[in-house]
Amino acid sequence: MNKKICIAIDAMGGENAPYKNIKGIDLFYKKHKSNKDFFFNIFGNEEKVNLELKNYSIPSEYYKIYHTSSVVSDNETPLTAVKTSKNSSMWNSVYSQVKSESDISLSAGNTGVLLVISRMILKTINGVSKPALAGLWPNFKGMNIVLDLGANIECDEKNLIEFSEMGAALHKSLFPKIKTKVSLLNVGSEEIKGTETIKKAFIKLKEISNNEDFEFNGYIEGNKIPDGDSNVIVTDGFTGNIALKTAEGTAKFITDNLKLSLKENFLSKFSIIFSYFSLKKFKEKLDPRKFNGAIFLGLNGPVVKSHGSTDSIGFYHSINLCYKIVKGNLMSQIKDNLSHLNDNKI
Amino acid sequence: MNKKICIAIDAMGGENAPYKNIKGIDLFYKKHKSNKDFFFNIFGNEEKVNLELKNYSIPSEYYKIYHTSSVVSDNETPLTAVKTSKNSSMWNSVYSQVKSESDISLSAGNTGVLLVISRMILKTINGVSKPALAGLWPNFKGMNIVLDLGANIECDEKNLIEFSEMGAALHKSLFPKIKTKVSLLNVGSEEIKGTETIKKAFIKLKEISNNEDFEFNGYIEGNKIPDGDSNVIVTDGFTGNIALKTAEGTAKFITDNLKLSLKENFLSKFSIIFSYFSLKKFKEKLDPRKFNGAIFLGLNGPVVKSHGSTDSIGFYHSINLCYKIVKGNLMSQIKDNLSHLNDNKI
Repeated sequence: MNKKICIAIDAMGGENAPYKNIKGIDLFYKKHKSNKDFFFNIFGNEEKVNLELKNYSIPSEYYKIYHTSSVVSDNETPLTAVKTSKNSSMWNSVYSQVKSESDISLSAGNTGVLLVISRMILKTINGVSKPALAGLWPNFKGMNIVLDLGANIECDEKNLIEFSEMGAALHKSLFPKIKTKVSLLNVGSEEIKGTETIKKAFIKLKEISNNEDFEFNGYIEGNKIPDGDSNVIVTDGFTGNIALKTAEGTAKFITDNLKLSLKENFLSKFSIIFSYFSLKKFKEKLDPRKFNGAIFLGLNGPVVKSHGSTDSIGFYHSINLCYKIVKGNLMSQIKDNLSHLNDNKI
Repeated sequence: MNKKICIAIDAMGGENAPYKNIKGIDLFYKKHKSNKDFFFNIFGNEEKVNLELKNYSIPSEYYKIYHTSSVVSDNETPLTAVKTSKNSSMWNSVYSQVKSESDISLSAGNTGVLLVISRMILKTINGVSKPALAGLWPNFKGMNIVLDLGANIECDEKNLIEFSEMGAALHKSLFPKIKTKVSLLNVGSEEIKGTETIKKAFIKLKEISNNEDFEFNGYIEGNKIPDGDSNVIVTDGFTGNIALKTAEGTAKFITDNLKLSLKENFLSKFSIIFSYFSLKKFKEKLDPRKFNGAIFLGLNGPVVKSHGSTDSIGFYHSINLCYKIVKGNLMSQIKDNLSHLNDNKI
């Protein structure tokens, strides 16, 4: 494998593909070109990809185009896609990891299909019962990692413990200087609260807490997530998905109400002139494109899913996430953390 | 029973009791005195309550004080409280419903204890397997009702269907002019998504949809709650509690960030002068004190739980909620809705 960080890009996945995907690559290239340590394997319709690439001046030593003849549509179900997607940009993008051509792959296409074919192609790491989808979540001190965000609707305590180790590995690879603190999402902070599964996971996590992988911070309630006292929040895929989407909905509800209020009369419209830079900074800080990219953990290779509806800036942030994940040695961090579970016979 | 709406008040529950509780009563009295259709049974330390009442001019025909010698502390567990709380303001407040002295009771005290003793004193309505805690949640069109918010950590499909009927009854009693639309909180809107329990509940709710009680709107994802297309959102107590608290945390995170941004420099501080009224209106619209009050449904009498940390305005809104619930005939609405379930043999 090339010593450069090789990122496989599904150029055809998501809204406005391949326009936003290629523009995202260009944004990344411009920001990181002094590093010279990255390379893109671009999968998609060669003609369309080349047409987009013509708009930028990315040197050809930074990428290779692999022509693929089909695209996984948003309406496709995982069941049919497994049979029909072998010539797609998504399939071949993930498959390039098996051929050791890429270190990671990124797609903004159909989430369900991506999860199923990634699992099929890359296979689960030995000892991991269920792979999980992890996401970034802003807090007052920086960034949380929350998992599982929806890959597994029902989870047992073994899953939650593996999620803790894998989430801690992801945190270490992305934020190596910050001590990793893991919490279990629950309806209260007292030990007696919660489901039987969570209580069992709590006991086991307490046993292995303060190992080199992470410190276990106990239970966390939904309203405490933004405090940033824990930076890896572990839950099952049902709860995690609902928490994430509820937070997204609430954020939109509040900012939309704010916009309405500020535009409702002349005086408030006038005030925007003075608060323009502050409001802009506020908006930028909470711009969801910055946290774009969910990471599929537990497979023999990392896969990142970008929001389908994001733009080139959001796609750029997902590429950046891929770059950081490989640079932070996520795969060896995960295997290392999971080996401690085996040591502890859990 | 008096023909007036009789509200039992636990005057000693919550932070700054009985100050905020009595001030809340005064705020309600001032707003509604022209109606003359309400009466307060106030439970608490007579001396302390009288000391607070001296600050207001509520005519004595609007209330009666019942002296109680103890207060349920925040640290008490339901297990010990059941034995020790018989002389408390909370216990006697709820118990006045059994004696037909009150139509509803309100407490800002220990939630766990209130749920357990309410259930013990009032008993579950015949045919209801589990009572549920319902709350109000603002949306773009008005107000949602979400339940269960944490009374039942694990629920089966029968519970979710009963929650739908009880939530619809609450909606009808509070918002009689708005068509009640029920949705099940889930990780996707497609029928194949979610847990087995949710899928079973979906099928049964589809069967009984479009009855006189409510229209069933299918699944709803967390980010769609604020849209207001459904006004009763049904989920188990674990998910509901986490969704509610995550929404609270997110709202605080965003408004705190906004405040920080608007105060960070002279120009933005200056702009607040011009946007003062708009920002005030924005703040007022989303003021959580307006939605203060969770309703315990499924018992032979309604019980409302106010936030412990709210102030007199928040407590006033909870009193107002109690008043509306009784005026809207919640109890007969619930029994009526539940009888349709029996008709359908579900």
